[in-house]
Amino acid sequence: MRQEFNGHGASRGSALGRARVRLPHVLEVVEEHIPARAVETEVARLHAAIATVRSEMFALRERLHGALAHEVGEFLDLHSLLLDDPELLQGLDELIRTGRYSADYALRLQRDRIASVFQTMDDAYFRSRVDDIDQVIGRVHAALHRHDAGMPGVAGEILVTDNVAPAEIAQLQAQGVMAIVTTTGSVLSHSAILARSLHLPLVVGTPQAMQKINDGDVLAVDGASGRVILEPDAADLRAHRARVRELARERKQLHRLRREPTRTLDGVDVKLYANAESREDVAEAHALGSAGVGLYRTEFLFLQRNELPDEEEQFRVYRDVVLGMTGRTVTIRTLDLGADKADRTGLALRDEPNPALGLRGVRLSLARDGLLDAQLRALVRASGYGPVRILLPMVSTREEVRSVRATLKHVTAELRAQGHEIAENVPLGAMIEVPAAAIALPAFIGSVDFLSIGTNDLVQYLLAADRNNEALTSLYTPLHPAVIRLIRDVIRQGQKRGKPVAVCGEIAGDPHFAPMLLALGLTEFSLHPATLLEVRRTIRHCDHARLQANAAALLRARDRKGIETWIAENAPSVG
Amino acid sequence: MRQEFNGHGASRGSALGRARVRLPHVLEVVEEHIPARAVETEVARLHAAIATVRSEMFALRERLHGALAHEVGEFLDLHSLLLDDPELLQGLDELIRTGRYSADYALRLQRDRIASVFQTMDDAYFRSRVDDIDQVIGRVHAALHRHDAGMPGVAGEILVTDNVAPAEIAQLQAQGVMAIVTTTGSVLSHSAILARSLHLPLVVGTPQAMQKINDGDVLAVDGASGRVILEPDAADLRAHRARVRELARERKQLHRLRREPTRTLDGVDVKLYANAESREDVAEAHALGSAGVGLYRTEFLFLQRNELPDEEEQFRVYRDVVLGMTGRTVTIRTLDLGADKADRTGLALRDEPNPALGLRGVRLSLARDGLLDAQLRALVRASGYGPVRILLPMVSTREEVRSVRATLKHVTAELRAQGHEIAENVPLGAMIEVPAAAIALPAFIGSVDFLSIGTNDLVQYLLAADRNNEALTSLYTPLHPAVIRLIRDVIRQGQKRGKPVAVCGEIAGDPHFAPMLLALGLTEFSLHPATLLEVRRTIRHCDHARLQANAAALLRARDRKGIETWIAENAPSVG
Repeated sequence: MRQEFNGHGASRGSALGRARVRLPHVLEVVEEHIPARAVETEVARLHAAIATVRSEMFALRERLHGALAHEVGEFLDLHSLLLDDPELLQGLDELIRTGRYSADYALRLQRDRIASVFQTMDDAYFRSRVDDIDQVIGRVHAALHRHDAGMPGVAGEILVTDNVAPAEIAQLQAQGVMAIVTTTGSVLSHSAILARSLHLPLVVGTPQAMQKINDGDVLAVDGASGRVILEPDAADLRAHRARVRELARERKQLHRLRREPTRTLDGVDVKLYANAESREDVAEAHALGSAGVGLYRTEFLFLQRNELPDEEEQFRVYRDVVLGMTGRTVTIRTLDLGADKADRTGLALRDEPNPALGLRGVRLSLARDGLLDAQLRALVRASGYGPVRILLPMVSTREEVRSVRATLKHVTAELRAQGHEIAENVPLGAMIEVPAAAIALPAFIGSVDFLSIGTNDLVQYLLAADRNNEALTSLYTPLHPAVIRLIRDVIRQGQKRGKPVAVCGEIAGDPHFAPMLLALGLTEFSLHPATLLEVRRTIRHCDHARLQANAAALLRARDRKGIETWIAENAPSVG
Repeated sequence: MRQEFNGHGASRGSALGRARVRLPHVLEVVEEHIPARAVETEVARLHAAIATVRSEMFALRERLHGALAHEVGEFLDLHSLLLDDPELLQGLDELIRTGRYSADYALRLQRDRIASVFQTMDDAYFRSRVDDIDQVIGRVHAALHRHDAGMPGVAGEILVTDNVAPAEIAQLQAQGVMAIVTTTGSVLSHSAILARSLHLPLVVGTPQAMQKINDGDVLAVDGASGRVILEPDAADLRAHRARVRELARERKQLHRLRREPTRTLDGVDVKLYANAESREDVAEAHALGSAGVGLYRTEFLFLQRNELPDEEEQFRVYRDVVLGMTGRTVTIRTLDLGADKADRTGLALRDEPNPALGLRGVRLSLARDGLLDAQLRALVRASGYGPVRILLPMVSTREEVRSVRATLKHVTAELRAQGHEIAENVPLGAMIEVPAAAIALPAFIGSVDFLSIGTNDLVQYLLAADRNNEALTSLYTPLHPAVIRLIRDVIRQGQKRGKPVAVCGEIAGDPHFAPMLLALGLTEFSLHPATLLEVRRTIRHCDHARLQANAAALLRARDRKGIETWIAENAPSVG
């Protein structure tokens, strides 16, 4: 019988499919013995499943973009580490070989063995560690069964669940899930932001869903309105088809904007740079007519491996990005590692009590011998193939910039002496994401050539609110007068000193924020290609002069509500 | 034979005594069985040792003051939790009863059992957990032996060690250690700051010390110059005695300042408020002639217990503080819990990935039903006994202040209706420690009656540098242009709007920073009584007008070195 649930639309898109209801995870496996002759097959089966999980996790990590690469990546990397632990694997093999247990049961035993020890300790303290282990073992378990039955996971289905972690969102999308409905959650959560950037329909806050919906039920989900319909009738199907057509039409219209300039109604040109970290991102950035690459992340070169990439390897990667952009500017960020669980090179620290406030970014590059030299050499060499800019993450003091500048100068002279063909000048810029750098900008703006405001971290530090902490979702927001004011100040100082300023945080890639950023004087955005055309479309509907005139009202807003009201009042009507 | 080592003087004071060399900790205990009849005595002996450790840790926690209460407290609380784990204790009892092991050997077995499981997992990930367990078990082990032999620990000795953790510093001082010499470390480390505030002589950076000094060697340590002398000769002893006399003379002179006003050379009066959290602090604050209590912390009421203190219990504590200050203003901060391991009330979250950026302070008070109401009622009731001000920690938005203000208004009306005798008006203030609050101050200064700048956290967030992260000791410093600028801005805005502004972070209690703070316009300091007289002495040697005139140069400083130079050039000659 038809039923309707009204949640909150957290990520647009329309889906029609069967429900897959996920109940709280319990790994229930009965004791199962295998004959002696099957032992090695069973070990091999287990290893195959582990290999599958490992490569799935690796592939997933590669697909993550933006700030999510770091955040979601951290979970994945931690899980990869656990998965790679030789003792864990050996323990499993032994259980199969000596106990003649099935791979499933061995997993269960190993899981219980570890968990039981943790549970003899203080629960609260070790709970999260048990969760990590549960998740890893759960993944392997799932892979074992996928192998057996060729089950497609949740591909083509609509997941109904209590809540969904950011790391899962990316994985579910990779597995082909069509939409997600959660009983809890908020449209401002990180999972919701991730879903939007992955174009995965998501409805949150439908408390009745888990009680009323069963596995296999047919659902129609509208991620825009937040409506979920169980056993849709003819009218619902018609509405669904209409939404799908409408979205297709919209996408087609967007596609036409690939060749159009990013220009406001009153003729102000805006530069849309792309954030990128893969060959595909670079190709797409080029195809979409981006102004260049505004943020090329280099962490992937250093993760999931035991040795540092040498200068030559780095050079080839950077050169290919430069060649891929055929003469448009490419901004490459130096290594932004920090407390990263996937770092096996031993560069980053482990177990920092507050990794977000730890030895990260340029701090780490300056702390480790040779690291910065090799990367700068590779970057400067790439400048022989097209315009390259170097961007430093997590700058907090003038000393850091000057120290890098000195190394850059030295490296450049060296390369010239060695006969390399390199650019006359490779601009050096700083990410503005540490509040002290924004506030003390006059003290060191003279030492940089350009600036890029990283709003994701900046907001986190300004508000002292971890953006991954679900308890703070309503507090973590760029819609705070301090954020607005500081962005405006940085842009102004850049203009005064003739230094280009871009914004490269998530807000640059969300069309809702574009009018606000234009009002604050921004003319350079750096965003993932996935939403570049949407942002271009919005900017093309903006009246720059009017927004500038309304900027004073924006800066007078005293709280979130005031800023939200300003945004609503200044939103252009698009399409 | 006499030998001299030159380290860095990290905390003043002169000590002469025998060395106690601490080698890296290994708990080596041989297998030892006991007769059946001794079993219950052995269990009792173990329990006595555990009780000793528990009360030592509790006493230590009580003695901690200032920011250290939170930071060091966290280690202690975590260890208390481990110590209280019923499973851990039961496991030990069982080992003694069924295995007839000595308490020592049972400890060793339990330790190894836990550690071995952790070591089958990825080392890096679990290493820090093994350390925690080692430390707790090591403490119990030490207590067992103290009981046996009545050994005085390190009382009266000079500890020579590779490094010393902040939590240990406080414990060592409590145990009566005379001085500490470390081979590594920096004068800027948190351990060093703690040693200074506890007046415990400390020399860091003497790499040869561990090789050359043996247990029982006689040492003369000068915490000011950083000189450590092995087997001192007659001249050394003379010099030591001279230093001791000099320190005593100095202390006597300081003591005379108890009745003197805190007034600059040119007659500007400065208010020195005391930070306090115990009855002793309050008594001392009164005796030293402080202007009142500038920061009374209320966390101790909520820690180490299973149930929340009710309104009545809180009221009695607050009232006693008010009575103890005999009419001087008492500023009481509402609960500043957050990711606190000692919280057994279940108020705070556990396992936040970045607790410093988590659900802390006023965020938590607003998130938990009834918590704020009860505390505000108790505080307002205390206002019937003398002037009380209410201070909110971790304010980051205008909404938070307005929400508390509304509750305060409601509570006040209710109390009046119930016939309580309360003050006409209880001022409500905000800690300025979240950068966003400092930057967006104009948006909500109208909603508060006074401000208190918490530089410890403010610096941490501004610089995105965890102050307890040893890898960042050179980065974590208030000597950054952004910190200077923001303190100045907050003071100015306070003056403009007629709202008193105090600084209550560690820099307020360090005489070195006093001229800088005066230059920035500060006239209210809030600091622990331990250094109140030293700060008063320094201020009495300052020329306020000259410092104000030099403020522009301070604000022009572009880096740490520039600020340090300014401080050196503007230091008054004291005594």
